[in-house]
Amino acid sequence: MIKQTRTREVQSQIRKILGKHVYGNMYGLSEAQITNIDFLTKTVLGSAKVGNMHIIELVTKKFPGYNGIEGGVSIIALIEESHIALHTWPESSYATVDIYSCGDHSRPELAYKHILERLTPKKHKFFSADRGNMTVS
Amino acid sequence: MIKQTRTREVQSQIRKILGKHVYGNMYGLSEAQITNIDFLTKTVLGSAKVGNMHIIELVTKKFPGYNGIEGGVSIIALIEESHIALHTWPESSYATVDIYSCGDHSRPELAYKHILERLTPKKHKFFSADRGNMTVS
Repeated sequence: MIKQTRTREVQSQIRKILGKHVYGNMYGLSEAQITNIDFLTKTVLGSAKVGNMHIIELVTKKFPGYNGIEGGVSIIALIEESHIALHTWPESSYATVDIYSCGDHSRPELAYKHILERLTPKKHKFFSADRGNMTVS
Repeated sequence: MIKQTRTREVQSQIRKILGKHVYGNMYGLSEAQITNIDFLTKTVLGSAKVGNMHIIELVTKKFPGYNGIEGGVSIIALIEESHIALHTWPESSYATVDIYSCGDHSRPELAYKHILERLTPKKHKFFSADRGNMTVS
């Protein structure tokens, strides 16, 4: 009888959402790579695959050039698990990456690592944030 | 002559990218609001306007329901300044917001505040991250 009550209590609790957001700022990148929309699109698609995430829709944009340098690229992917975003600034050899993924089946760190290995920045700063609903204070 | 050399040095420096990312986890939201794709789309469009950001493309997705509760919504906007993302989980009265904006003309905090005022969560956790290229250590 006690066990049954406990089960009911668990069922009435709010559903736990696992949400993990990893993101990074990448420095010292190749201008040729970070202006190449096809290369970057493949990189984002590859990262989703490696991280076991599932793309619903992907949007890309190539920006105009700056001071004779080719324009940067933005790619955002709406995924079943949340989103992936990649923005590049070739005039500064710079890019940022966001991988925000919900559910315990996905591996956003592996997706980030995939992008890191493709872009090979000279330096990068890596961050991680809990986007789940179990950490309210 | 010295002055001219200094000018050349400044010109050869890497271009500074101002990038500010504000994001939050919002708790205790209205199921009616966070399942309403039109309301949420207007909320994202309004936040871009308030924050002086410029939408290039907006993607929306309504997810299937869960245990008799209507499905959540994801909205991501590719903007000139980077991106805006809103994800909702009505089964947990929960949503997350990301506003990542580059350039000193935009006001991501005001955009976040706009979403906060529209969704009126019981609680929220707010975060801010520097996504510019001047903070490499």
